Amino acid sequence: MTVKITLAEYLFYRLHDAGLLAVHGVPGDYNLQLLDHVTPCGLEWVGNCNELNAGYATDGYARIKGIGALVTTFGVGELSAINAIAGAYAEMAPVVHIVGTPDRKSQSLGARLHHSFCRGISQDYEIFAEMYAKVTVKQENLINLSTAPMQIDRAIRECILQSRPVYIRVPMDMVHAMVPRPHSSRSMLVPGSHRCESLNLLPAPNEPLCELEIMEQIVHQIRNAKRPFILVDGGTSRYGLSEMANQLVKMTGFPTGTTPFGKGIVDETLRNFHGIYSPVGDKRYQSYLECCDLIINIGPVHSNVNTFYFTTVPKVDVSIMFEQDCVTVGPSTWNLKPKSLLEKILDNLAKDGLSRLEPYPDLPRVTLTPEMVEVHPSAELTQNIFWTRISSFFRSGDIIMTETGTASVGGRDMILPKGTTLINSSVWLSIGYMLAAAQGAALAQRNLKSSSLTPSQGRTILFEGDGSFQMTAQEVSTIIRKKLDVIIFIINNNGYTIERLIHGPEQHYNEVASWKYLEAPSFFGGVQDSEYPIFTASANTWGTLDAILNDKEFKDGRGLRIVELKMDIMDCTQHMSDLFQMGGKKD
Amino acid sequence: MTVKITLAEYLFYRLHDAGLLAVHGVPGDYNLQLLDHVTPCGLEWVGNCNELNAGYATDGYARIKGIGALVTTFGVGELSAINAIAGAYAEMAPVVHIVGTPDRKSQSLGARLHHSFCRGISQDYEIFAEMYAKVTVKQENLINLSTAPMQIDRAIRECILQSRPVYIRVPMDMVHAMVPRPHSSRSMLVPGSHRCESLNLLPAPNEPLCELEIMEQIVHQIRNAKRPFILVDGGTSRYGLSEMANQLVKMTGFPTGTTPFGKGIVDETLRNFHGIYSPVGDKRYQSYLECCDLIINIGPVHSNVNTFYFTTVPKVDVSIMFEQDCVTVGPSTWNLKPKSLLEKILDNLAKDGLSRLEPYPDLPRVTLTPEMVEVHPSAELTQNIFWTRISSFFRSGDIIMTETGTASVGGRDMILPKGTTLINSSVWLSIGYMLAAAQGAALAQRNLKSSSLTPSQGRTILFEGDGSFQMTAQEVSTIIRKKLDVIIFIINNNGYTIERLIHGPEQHYNEVASWKYLEAPSFFGGVQDSEYPIFTASANTWGTLDAILNDKEFKDGRGLRIVELKMDIMDCTQHMSDLFQMGGKKD
Repeated sequence: MTVKITLAEYLFYRLHDAGLLAVHGVPGDYNLQLLDHVTPCGLEWVGNCNELNAGYATDGYARIKGIGALVTTFGVGELSAINAIAGAYAEMAPVVHIVGTPDRKSQSLGARLHHSFCRGISQDYEIFAEMYAKVTVKQENLINLSTAPMQIDRAIRECILQSRPVYIRVPMDMVHAMVPRPHSSRSMLVPGSHRCESLNLLPAPNEPLCELEIMEQIVHQIRNAKRPFILVDGGTSRYGLSEMANQLVKMTGFPTGTTPFGKGIVDETLRNFHGIYSPVGDKRYQSYLECCDLIINIGPVHSNVNTFYFTTVPKVDVSIMFEQDCVTVGPSTWNLKPKSLLEKILDNLAKDGLSRLEPYPDLPRVTLTPEMVEVHPSAELTQNIFWTRISSFFRSGDIIMTETGTASVGGRDMILPKGTTLINSSVWLSIGYMLAAAQGAALAQRNLKSSSLTPSQGRTILFEGDGSFQMTAQEVSTIIRKKLDVIIFIINNNGYTIERLIHGPEQHYNEVASWKYLEAPSFFGGVQDSEYPIFTASANTWGTLDAILNDKEFKDGRGLRIVELKMDIMDCTQHMSDLFQMGGKKD
Repeated sequence: MTVKITLAEYLFYRLHDAGLLAVHGVPGDYNLQLLDHVTPCGLEWVGNCNELNAGYATDGYARIKGIGALVTTFGVGELSAINAIAGAYAEMAPVVHIVGTPDRKSQSLGARLHHSFCRGISQDYEIFAEMYAKVTVKQENLINLSTAPMQIDRAIRECILQSRPVYIRVPMDMVHAMVPRPHSSRSMLVPGSHRCESLNLLPAPNEPLCELEIMEQIVHQIRNAKRPFILVDGGTSRYGLSEMANQLVKMTGFPTGTTPFGKGIVDETLRNFHGIYSPVGDKRYQSYLECCDLIINIGPVHSNVNTFYFTTVPKVDVSIMFEQDCVTVGPSTWNLKPKSLLEKILDNLAKDGLSRLEPYPDLPRVTLTPEMVEVHPSAELTQNIFWTRISSFFRSGDIIMTETGTASVGGRDMILPKGTTLINSSVWLSIGYMLAAAQGAALAQRNLKSSSLTPSQGRTILFEGDGSFQMTAQEVSTIIRKKLDVIIFIINNNGYTIERLIHGPEQHYNEVASWKYLEAPSFFGGVQDSEYPIFTASANTWGTLDAILNDKEFKDGRGLRIVELKMDIMDCTQHMSDLFQMGGKKD
């Protein structure tokens, strides 16, 4: 006998199977019936204040948990979220966007329903999906009962394998349609124990002979390299290569650097890690890179921001690039999945060993030294010191998030302890993203803590400017409502400082309103209690900042902790002013 | 000698010529150079907290001022605003959306720039424009110097004539390109006095013989009608027909009603005005409509919400419909602009007079009577009384805005004094719209006051629920920063009450966080001063509410005034519960 469940249950159980524990979104009258099934299927519902914020939060959740899901309503809801989904596409976050749509009959008749253009044509029900086809890797419309379960599986599979957003439309009249429970998941109705074999999340295997040949070629190049370099970029974590990249760095002992987007993936305490490969600053090592005979470039993302206006893109002739679905060795590209190939490369290197690089090149080391953090307690906070100095506050397990602007560029100076995760934006750069993403990341971190698979003791720590904070400020209320443990440093420098550095330093359009940032927890409904403490403080000198950072309740406590950092209107790191000096002025 | 100006100046002067006095938006690095020219061209810059809010504000401004302009940056900015532009399209607001894009060379080379998908293809610079082609009536990309001025003129013309949004892309390297100053506007460089003949905003004339024939046919029908009715809908104001519709109502003395979307267009104090034509409530109305021999339907908008699920769409065989570009008489549609035709109909009726309708049908009258507003001072506020009762607070010149939800439906019970403007949403229904739109509307109201053309002494009064407020709350800070005079009534009923009425009354997903709404002015940077006073109060009984409404500083004062109205979680008007009773449950 085939046991049947509703399509909504199928959808949410399958997402649970894929590792999801929480659904973000906003209710709307075309998705209410769908939302009835979220909690009964073992998922937590996070109602955000608006859909763009919900989209950002889902992205932040997905970057930590490996999958995120967003539910919005047709038209108004999905369009409000589209910039977040475009960002997830650009920066490769595995987000499933589910849209509750009107019943199938109304759609096919072109009924003039609210949230549509009411032109009386069925095309009114396709135009938003057409937009979404441009920012997602798979689109499914669940209008056919016989194919709907397969469509759900296919969308989730593509979301995870491509690490990019997918789009699923669920008409209201399909929510309670009955579909067979997958035969392999008899335990499906017991939340938490229903991993279902038939949800195939494995990529197609590489062609064995081709893989063997390329593996041998790469191993040969590694063994014979005289001036090698490993450059780890943001795609590394998206393609599931972080652990193997770290193994490669350790096993070869090759000099290693990171791009801004890749920062945090490689253990920064390794002796052969040399920081961000940048054309400016005293940490530069461009001359070494120019004479390299082998550059292993893992997960490259060649945006202007991530490559310092294309000055740090490695030379093709000496490069091996591990990309999402292919590997490029010099001038030739091979359709090989990097994960399987890299695994075989590591196996081979481990089997036969590898001699150390002698002599090791003279490259800058990045370690936190006392003189880097020496300050006078009454001196004003400056970004040039701040980002290095705050590094000693971090600890293993922390998720550190630096919002686009002076925080993101400043964060390049941070020296991260082992086991930390850094989230920044290096392609999409949509300000406002990071606060909402912090809500999602903190929830994912809690979800990970409560599962036995990947324990984490860390904190979620966000750095962002005042202009960015104002974009999505209301998600502070979601952080409070969900009792999430988050530390927020708000850099109050009276406006869009990064824009001022680019153009119009004195222009009024770069100003923002002067909010009382420390009143946020109270306004957004925070109530001081022992279960969920709230901490707020303001600092404009190193002395006041140190007192906050050393406060036990602040550094080891729970709850929401907001620190306002008062900094000068034009203050930025040396690295940043060097970049602007360089002439690009486009970062 | 041809005097030249920059393309940016040309754009902003032309917008000024079209009646614009303020530009909304958010700065971003692809639009900063463009923004340099806003203020020098005599326009006020309104920096909003985010782009969706800026889009909503522009829409609100446009509905009052006749044109609005929004500047965003490429990619992240424009996508964040797209839901607002889609709403302007759906509800016909004349918004010019200007996007600052990367330089032309980078675009044509497919440079991997931030805010794009960095795929290395020039198509990366087209996909957002392709989305916008679905939600705007004209799209222009200013890449060609010789056509750019004409393209600007064409876009502004279509925006105003179609009363719908248009989309203009300005590459960074085109901002300072020099174009000829229009020969007809020598005074262009003097802001405020440069109306330029060559910006043609007149529609093409109707074909005279056809117009004459249809005019005579309609006049004949009007003169011979035994059971006539005039139904004024939301398109009336969009097509510039409001004044003529009022003349027709007065001149004919025909029984007149409005749709929810059309409410506020017809003078509600006229004896032949009978309120909203609805399937619930007084039954006399419907039985009259069923036997009408002539229904003059001006500016029909047949969304489910506006037609009570299509129950109030007039019968075609007795109808004359004045639409945007055509007039439908019974079964036949004629390509005639309604404005010119209606003008000629009015002239003809005025010339030869028209006999009164005898006997006048027995239809419900809508006037504010003492018993409608009688309450016990200690009784709790209820929506069923509130919306009628608050009507006595309104006065001529007021802009009254009711956000989607219980406010919008409740506002149908309001009895409006002559000369008020009501803004509600009856097609797009994107919650969060109304607060940001109130910022735009209040600024437009101030701009109108300062111009001699349309003096207004009124106030901007917003009603919205707590869930809606949370969507776009930060625009309170823009209201404060621009020192706008706004009264906000926040209905605090602990969540999405309208969703609860539709589905899931007890469901947790219909809850929202408990904010301290009255702390908003302080948090958002408001400082009590005599120039810009701030008033906050909370009411849960009629007595406390009356004290607020009678406070001179509140009702006649300036500044920001916020009143929190505490209402029951499931409270709504009788009208609304009758509608849900009716079975539709889809409003």
